[in-house]
Parts: sequence; structure tokens; C-alpha cells
Amino acid sequence: MCQLLGMNCNVPTDICFSFEGFSARGGKTDDHCDGWGIAFFEDKGCRIFLDSQPSIKSPIAEFVKQYPIHSTHVIAHIRKATQGKVALENCHPFIRELWGRYWVFAHNGNLPYFQEKNINWENRGIFQPVGNTDSEKAFCLILNTFRNHFPDQQPPLKELYLVLDQITQEIAKFGVFNYLLSNGEHFFSHCSTKLCYIIRQAPFAAAHLIDEEITVDFNEVTTASDRVAIIATAPLTDNEHWTVIQPGELLVFAQGEPLKIS
Amino acid sequence: MCQLLGMNCNVPTDICFSFEGFSARGGKTDDHCDGWGIAFFEDKGCRIFLDSQPSIKSPIAEFVKQYPIHSTHVIAHIRKATQGKVALENCHPFIRELWGRYWVFAHNGNLPYFQEKNINWENRGIFQPVGNTDSEKAFCLILNTFRNHFPDQQPPLKELYLVLDQITQEIAKFGVFNYLLSNGEHFFSHCSTKLCYIIRQAPFAAAHLIDEEITVDFNEVTTASDRVAIIATAPLTDNEHWTVIQPGELLVFAQGEPLKIS
Repeated sequence: MCQLLGMNCNVPTDICFSFEGFSARGGKTDDHCDGWGIAFFEDKGCRIFLDSQPSIKSPIAEFVKQYPIHSTHVIAHIRKATQGKVALENCHPFIRELWGRYWVFAHNGNLPYFQEKNINWENRGIFQPVGNTDSEKAFCLILNTFRNHFPDQQPPLKELYLVLDQITQEIAKFGVFNYLLSNGEHFFSHCSTKLCYIIRQAPFAAAHLIDEEITVDFNEVTTASDRVAIIATAPLTDNEHWTVIQPGELLVFAQGEPLKIS
Repeated sequence: MCQLLGMNCNVPTDICFSFEGFSARGGKTDDHCDGWGIAFFEDKGCRIFLDSQPSIKSPIAEFVKQYPIHSTHVIAHIRKATQGKVALENCHPFIRELWGRYWVFAHNGNLPYFQEKNINWENRGIFQPVGNTDSEKAFCLILNTFRNHFPDQQPPLKELYLVLDQITQEIAKFGVFNYLLSNGEHFFSHCSTKLCYIIRQAPFAAAHLIDEEITVDFNEVTTASDRVAIIATAPLTDNEHWTVIQPGELLVFAQGEPLKIS
């Protein structure tokens, strides 16, 4: 298994505080030691930092903790390998381009019964996994499914959501499939077994990490209109109320809060 | 215009020395200030560092200069914008997945007359640019051409080379098209106007950077069987002999030296 961390906000925000606690779980407070990664969207551009070293020992993770990169869509992952060796090509998040946008995906879970042949894997030649994880296979299947339904361009969110929800349910039959998926415009979070979120907005308060002795008073570092959603496998703070996402729920976050798709 | 730096070696090697001199050209010894990027392959995995800040001011570039990442296939770029605004999505190298491999591309030049419609841009829907540079368009056209010729899997190198050479010549009609392209297995270098390389192998000697007061004695940091090719827009050292690649030449580097394709 692995752990996920995501952020979606209405103004570009840095994730240093949350990433500090999260990355401690890559070998210090928990044993997700088989690599890590983090993707930051800046408009349509995307930068990803990846390392197959444990996040608590990785100089790149140390750099990311120290250097505030401001983004509205962030996806991070610490890995505990189930399928696929410990290697750079098996580190999440994975990235692909579809419809002239980068898509980024990270998975927590294990899909032991997920074989390509069990699912209607049409047009399988377009997106192919580079590494050998079940996670990257699932990501490619999602994007291939998107492309089969909408060959030319990205459809409106609702249409995209319906297709994503359907393929997600199909894949989830094969095991545990918690994931975060974003193209820098939309931010999807699927809970199969375990995922939660918190919305931080005015009036802001202080938050204290579970994994490190660190407190931040968000009142001092925000403006009244800021809104930030943090999505994580397990709560990162011990003095805030985290909302549990229900198994089977596929949420879309926008502007720092869950969106109603109707 | 921009500048290119590439490295291909027979054993994973760090590029800190060359990158130190190269990145100085991003605002100190030259004016390629509109962003930079560097991609390192590690087996099939790939990590890319990108920044729209000048390389001499970028904390990420500073980190890359200090932190030795060992790789056999490296592509770096410093940008002086001709087409496309200064933004993360317009920083080279660009990345895509094809045939289950990441492909990475960086371009030096300008293709003012390059319009998609002037070239037989079949099946244009597969790879699409995310940003708005001529360079990324050209990269997508190369990959779309690859895919049209070989829909299912990567062909032997010679077949791939012939297709690449042909599409490269077509694109080069539209302007200046020096580029580096790699999938972590093959390493292609095309000279349209300006590109050179040096092979470092035993007996190793000291090398002195043009852009910084730095000398490295490679004798002290290598073993007798190491071989490293450095490819660059302009020589990086002033006490070594750099070989000029001829305009129109498409070279393939492997194991730290140019390969004969016959």
C-alpha cells in the first residue's frame, strides 16, 4: 500500500506544511519507503519531482520541503511497493498528455486481480505503462477510455465525470483503488477504502501536524478569501476535523472545495 | 534562440560540471533567461526538472548543480523565447510516452514558417502540444510520425532512424532545427546550424569551463573504461577539442560515442 496527498485551492498555495508531515511517513513515522513523488501544476505546465529513495532520506524531498512552490493543483505519493520493483519508473505520480493537457495520477491500493484482459481494454496501443505497476496500468486504462469516448477533445466536466466514474467502478472490482487524478483544471479523488479531506478557509486557525512537532497558524499566512482543500489517505493534523470520503465516492474538487456534479 | 546540452555515456555519470558552465549562460555569461530544464533517464524512468526562471536565479537549478544525479542519457535546455510566452509549459525538455517508453525532446532554433498545415500532419490527435512553442509542435509531429509508421511497437533502430531523418528534414525546411531527442535507450542529435560534441575517454585529462572558473581532472573521477559524450550548442570547455556536427547531420549516440547507422 501507499499514501496519497492532494491539494486543490482557489489561489496558488504552497504545500510545504502538509508535505512535511506527509513525507515523514516515508520511513520515519510510517514505512512507505519505496519511493515518492509530487506533481505541481502551474497553469497548463506541470513539474514533477520523483525519487525511488525513501522520502525521509531523499535530498530532492528535502528540497521540496524547503522550497515553497505555489500551485492550485498538487498530487503527492509515498510508495510501499506491492506490484513492481523499487525503481524510478514505478514512482507515482505518473504523467501523460491527453487533449493537449498533462494528466497526473497517483494510486493507493493494490489491484491483484486487475489484468488488462479482464477489462474491455480497447485501443490499448495509445497509452501504455512504462513501469510494471498495477497503478500505471490503471492510469493508462483510464486515459485510453477517455480517449475512446472523446477522441478529439476534452468534453464538458459532467460527461468526463460519468465516463471516469464508470471505468473507476470497473477497475475497483479488482482490488483497492483510492486515487488522485488531475489535469491542472479538474481534480478528481476516488475513495475505494480510505481517503479524507479538510477544507481550510476563513476564519483560519492553527494546525498541528501528527507526524512532526510543527504548528502553523494559517491566520498569519492567508488572506480572507483563500480556500484550500487538502486530501489525504489519513489525516495529517490532530487538531482539525477531517471529513471521511465514503467508499465508492468519486469527488471533484474545484477552487478548494468539493463540486456538486449534477 | 536557446542552447542545448546533452550527455550520453556507457556508465551512469553525473553532469554537474557541464551543467555548471551551461547554466551560467542562462543570465550570467549569456542571455538565455526565459526558463530552463533538464531530463535524466534512469533505466526506463525519467525525471525532469523545469523552471521558467533564469537558470542562474533558479533555486531548482542551484539544487541540480549541487546534487549529482547519475544517468546515461541527459538532455538539458536553456531558453531564450522566440515563440510562446515565458511559462512552465513552454520550458524544454518536453516529455511524452510512446510504445511504453518516455521520450524527451529539446530544441534550439526557430521555425517561423512551421505551420501544422504545411506538413502532412496525419493522425494529429494523438500527441498534441500543451504549450504554444514551435518546438513542442515539432516534437509532437515527430512522435505522431513515429506512431503512424509503427503503430504497435518500437521498430529496430535503423528503421526508426530513417523515419526520423525524413521528418526532421521536412521540419528543418521551416527554419532552424537543432535538437536532442532520447527515450533513455537511443540518443538522437540533429544539427541544423550549430551543434558540437566531445567524447571523453581514457586517457582522461583536466577540463576547464569557459563560463566559470572551474577545472575538473577527469582522471581522478573516472575509471579506465568510462566513455562520455557531451553534446552542446557551443563548446563548454576551452582546453579540449570539440567536434562540429555538420548541418543536416542526424547523429545517434550510444555508449558514449556516435553510432554508425548502416
